[in-house]
Amino acid sequence: MLRIGLLGAGRIGRVHAQAIISHPQSQLCALSDANSEAAESLAAEHDATVRSSEEIIADPSIDAVLIATPTDTHSDLIEAATRAGKAVLCEKPVDLDLERAIACKSIADATGQPVMVGFNRRFDPSFSALKSAADRDEIGAAEMLSITSFDPAPPPVSYVQVSGGLFRDMMIHDFDMANFLMGQLPQHISAVGTSIIDPEIGRAGDVDTAVVTMSYADGKIAVIKNSRRSVYGYDQRIELLGSGGLLQAHNILENSVVKSTVDGVVGAKPTYFFLERYMPAYRAEWDAFVTAALSGSAMPVTLDDGVAALAMAEAATRSAQSGRPVAMSEVLKPVAK
Amino acid sequence: MLRIGLLGAGRIGRVHAQAIISHPQSQLCALSDANSEAAESLAAEHDATVRSSEEIIADPSIDAVLIATPTDTHSDLIEAATRAGKAVLCEKPVDLDLERAIACKSIADATGQPVMVGFNRRFDPSFSALKSAADRDEIGAAEMLSITSFDPAPPPVSYVQVSGGLFRDMMIHDFDMANFLMGQLPQHISAVGTSIIDPEIGRAGDVDTAVVTMSYADGKIAVIKNSRRSVYGYDQRIELLGSGGLLQAHNILENSVVKSTVDGVVGAKPTYFFLERYMPAYRAEWDAFVTAALSGSAMPVTLDDGVAALAMAEAATRSAQSGRPVAMSEVLKPVAK
Amino acid sequence: MLRIGLLGAGRIGRVHAQAIISHPQSQLCALSDANSEAAESLAAEHDATVRSSEEIIADPSIDAVLIATPTDTHSDLIEAATRAGKAVLCEKPVDLDLERAIACKSIADATGQPVMVGFNRRFDPSFSALKSAADRDEIGAAEMLSITSFDPAPPPVSYVQVSGGLFRDMMIHDFDMANFLMGQLPQHISAVGTSIIDPEIGRAGDVDTAVVTMSYADGKIAVIKNSRRSVYGYDQRIELLGSGGLLQAHNILENSVVKSTVDGVVGAKPTYFFLERYMPAYRAEWDAFVTAALSGSAMPVTLDDGVAALAMAEAATRSAQSGRPVAMSEVLKPVAK
Amino acid sequence: MLRIGLLGAGRIGRVHAQAIISHPQSQLCALSDANSEAAESLAAEHDATVRSSEEIIADPSIDAVLIATPTDTHSDLIEAATRAGKAVLCEKPVDLDLERAIACKSIADATGQPVMVGFNRRFDPSFSALKSAADRDEIGAAEMLSITSFDPAPPPVSYVQVSGGLFRDMMIHDFDMANFLMGQLPQHISAVGTSIIDPEIGRAGDVDTAVVTMSYADGKIAVIKNSRRSVYGYDQRIELLGSGGLLQAHNILENSVVKSTVDGVVGAKPTYFFLERYMPAYRAEWDAFVTAALSGSAMPVTLDDGVAALAMAEAATRSAQSGRPVAMSEVLKPVAK
Repeated sequence: MLRIGLLGAGRIGRVHAQAIISHPQSQLCALSDANSEAAESLAAEHDATVRSSEEIIADPSIDAVLIATPTDTHSDLIEAATRAGKAVLCEKPVDLDLERAIACKSIADATGQPVMVGFNRRFDPSFSALKSAADRDEIGAAEMLSITSFDPAPPPVSYVQVSGGLFRDMMIHDFDMANFLMGQLPQHISAVGTSIIDPEIGRAGDVDTAVVTMSYADGKIAVIKNSRRSVYGYDQRIELLGSGGLLQAHNILENSVVKSTVDGVVGAKPTYFFLERYMPAYRAEWDAFVTAALSGSAMPVTLDDGVAALAMAEAATRSAQSGRPVAMSEVLKPVAK
Repeated sequence: MLRIGLLGAGRIGRVHAQAIISHPQSQLCALSDANSEAAESLAAEHDATVRSSEEIIADPSIDAVLIATPTDTHSDLIEAATRAGKAVLCEKPVDLDLERAIACKSIADATGQPVMVGFNRRFDPSFSALKSAADRDEIGAAEMLSITSFDPAPPPVSYVQVSGGLFRDMMIHDFDMANFLMGQLPQHISAVGTSIIDPEIGRAGDVDTAVVTMSYADGKIAVIKNSRRSVYGYDQRIELLGSGGLLQAHNILENSVVKSTVDGVVGAKPTYFFLERYMPAYRAEWDAFVTAALSGSAMPVTLDDGVAALAMAEAATRSAQSGRPVAMSEVLKPVAK
Repeated sequence: MLRIGLLGAGRIGRVHAQAIISHPQSQLCALSDANSEAAESLAAEHDATVRSSEEIIADPSIDAVLIATPTDTHSDLIEAATRAGKAVLCEKPVDLDLERAIACKSIADATGQPVMVGFNRRFDPSFSALKSAADRDEIGAAEMLSITSFDPAPPPVSYVQVSGGLFRDMMIHDFDMANFLMGQLPQHISAVGTSIIDPEIGRAGDVDTAVVTMSYADGKIAVIKNSRRSVYGYDQRIELLGSGGLLQAHNILENSVVKSTVDGVVGAKPTYFFLERYMPAYRAEWDAFVTAALSGSAMPVTLDDGVAALAMAEAATRSAQSGRPVAMSEVLKPVAK
Repeated sequence: MLRIGLLGAGRIGRVHAQAIISHPQSQLCALSDANSEAAESLAAEHDATVRSSEEIIADPSIDAVLIATPTDTHSDLIEAATRAGKAVLCEKPVDLDLERAIACKSIADATGQPVMVGFNRRFDPSFSALKSAADRDEIGAAEMLSITSFDPAPPPVSYVQVSGGLFRDMMIHDFDMANFLMGQLPQHISAVGTSIIDPEIGRAGDVDTAVVTMSYADGKIAVIKNSRRSVYGYDQRIELLGSGGLLQAHNILENSVVKSTVDGVVGAKPTYFFLERYMPAYRAEWDAFVTAALSGSAMPVTLDDGVAALAMAEAATRSAQSGRPVAMSEVLKPVAK
């Protein structure tokens, strides 16, 4: 049994709380949140105690912490928790600043404690089935990857302003998915972005629609398409073309009903909310973390993965701003192991 | 090259004319129709001559006739044409009266001339692909067949009154499809019919919605569902469950466009018109006839098939009227070879 | 908060236990099972106490019991529990014997206690979405209902022998679904059954493949197709044709991945196991029960529904044996309120 | 009636011959081909006469010529035919050399004769339905276009060497489709290409897999993905994301049969051969040409369209070689009207 401290009781914290209490080998012991009302309410639901993050990290009876706090606290909490001997599952991204993330990784690595970064989509049943099929060589050698990732509605501009931008905040999931499926980092990243949905987003210095092309040392190509608005639902699809065929992961629909009338044949929309779509992924992610933490085996997603995705977001941001391809070596030089 | 006389220049006659002229081994030489305007107009389009059916049948330079006249002339024309030494392709049904059809078959058989009955759906690319897959044993032994066959809109009541009824006029195609796929006649037929779409159809002594269940000597079961109204298009589907799996032939859609909006995910409807859906089938049917006629090989659909389907329609009609299952032996006794 | 006693800790009992503990307004207090090992193991997982069914029913601190014991105990337990003032959710069927079920209903009704019968499929998200669309008149007036319900693999013959037969054991779900969607009982039921999958099932007096046609007083028709073997997964589909269109509920697939190779375009199979397919339905069913029990509103599925489905199974059984349609009035005379 | 001279009797010439003879308002009078055997054989099938291209162009009884000869003769023949007062339908591309194409356009324009360029995909029923839906504002303002266009198998390297390269030979169709759907030319084109399928193609100076990103003055983005090898068939899909939804044109499948077994749910592959997929498009293209030529209305695809697509291919080629985005103004300066 893994005794868990949950740092953060906001929307995503509640999702994780549900996964923690449903898992037969984990127990939600304590939780913290800057908003004490949110903390008390969540604690009451699950018979957990409310404490400060510092207290939780300092408590030797807590085996692992799950960090679901605002992004700008992630690095500090990862460092503190690993130094205190905890296993850590931290929500993405590690940090908005690449150098800070790299520094955090060095410190956490030095403690020897296991840290997993919460790229939950790797655990989506359809995406992981696609990955397994590719690993079983069902479509031969991969040649071209294409990721479609659209949000149903743009966030408020106030969020956009502190988000780090579309590439670090939203496309970072897709960068990690590319790394997961391609098994390597790209050599060059070329980004085109536009604020066609909402000019306010453009005035805030960000884009709301973007296409990123990535080329790899072995000749492969990947494309990621992001939009902040797909009014028909959460659009999350992947295509991998290989020498022997094509793998596609289609959307998950709200239900299986189809209506045929004089107006056409109408099926259900993709699930609208990311939690609905990815709830099985959050559960499987937590199971993977618990299993690795209890068995001592390697974490399936590491701080290295977190840093890599962040570096790609950095490169894409620079490319979109400069209008030229950016080599990964330009942004990942600091890592230089 | 097969020199063809076309008897009937109505809607279905025009369809056949197109198939005849498009085929590299057949030539449309002459055509007839009670409506001389229709005959002249079609003849002008295709450089054919207008003559009476009798003249065409008597002309030794004509190799084959295609009978697309009203149903009540089919038997007479089949007999006359085969006696005159022609190969014949006759539209379904052979006759509305089972005994008359059986008598026609005897006479035609005696001439030794090849006769094909126009059950065009056997040549539909999807249905014939389903049949081929079943023949290749891709789903093991067949156990349950299910045919869905809905017309987009009911015919006028005036047509219903002379049609012979839904079972002889509409479901006869599905009876033949069952024979094609099951490779045997059923033992018992049980029908339920209703005039729920239009009470006028009921007052005319017919039904507009019906379900027929058929059981076979070897334990198999088949179900046919007919409706005179599927407002979303022509609904033509088949399912065959076997010991090793399921084969389905889905509808053919008007195009491949799908629109996703807040109102749902909307695809194209099934093709609305039977000619649009079955035009490839009419072409393939004609090719099969020409090939058999020129090579002297057996016709792929015979008068036996025409009689069998008619006998099943007769049994279904009796079952719907009496409310009890009807044995095929009750209606096919006269055949008694 | 509803305090629950769970009677039965077998496979389906465990499913319900999960729903009980996950619901914020219900609490699993006690459970019983003839197999004490099963009871102890389930109780340990969920901090419940093991007691006899009698003790649980007699305990005034228990608000409601969930009956998930063998079928032949259902009627007795419903009677005892309602007499003891409990709300009851009982797994289907109420009984294998129609008269016994009717008697049980009389006794339970007399207590005034709410009883819900566990026809979980009414709560399946896709089926209930189909029902809602029909209720919103999205396809006009219903005309023909078609239910496809295939199990992936037949049960052992030893189970078949005590099951009450396919109509009472398996198709009873589909009878209830027909009642749910049509909002009325049929007038006549006509059944064809065969033991084509396994002759041993036939020797045990049962069928493994069956088609039932039902006709309604207002001219509607319904068809139910059952097979004990669809090797590709659990095949659960519904089609409802109306004057204005068609509603279909398709299968739920294991995932959304599609693979295209030279061998074809391969998608995932339907979920294989009924628990995987219907887990959301079990959760929604439990929520409906808890809500009704706490609010005092009417149960969404009643003992009347349980009796009706059983009567239809009785009629279908007689029809399959006699080879003639059976009027519902023949089997439901005893009810005669 | 339009009297037609067909220049070129190769594979694509035969396709056009079929469209010409099937159209009620066009007549195939004469045809030419450098390969006299091919010419004679096609002429015999359709009762046409074999003559030289020069003779056909000089014959005043010929109303229009269809140019289906090798690419390097297109410009010369367009010029000669328009100077001789013919209407012209010319296969794509106008030329491999952008300046030559522009010069040809000037000369043809000066004659006032109507010239249509054979971008047949604009007439594909699904793509034109997608365009119509967008024009009817069914998904609001377009924001991101994505074109997937994969050939089932790469051509021989000998063909690649004279093809002008993937961008001019293959992607030119997709450039035209982007122009058709977006209604404007892009500002910048950024291309990534690789010869991952066959290194011989790379040694021949070409790529076999490429992704092109295009950005527009009004903030829109388009992406084109090309591969020379999709072993599962001809993969031709389009997606257009708008402010109010998404339009997708899916592949056309060989048939509608789906097989479900323990190995999965297998549907038909996309049609393999481009002629099978695009035959309806060739027919509709020809109908559009005949209609415009006879009525004197504007040609639906013009030499301007041919030049624009070629210029985009030129820009993409330069971008793939240089690794930087290329502005359309760099390649289209010569046009400068």
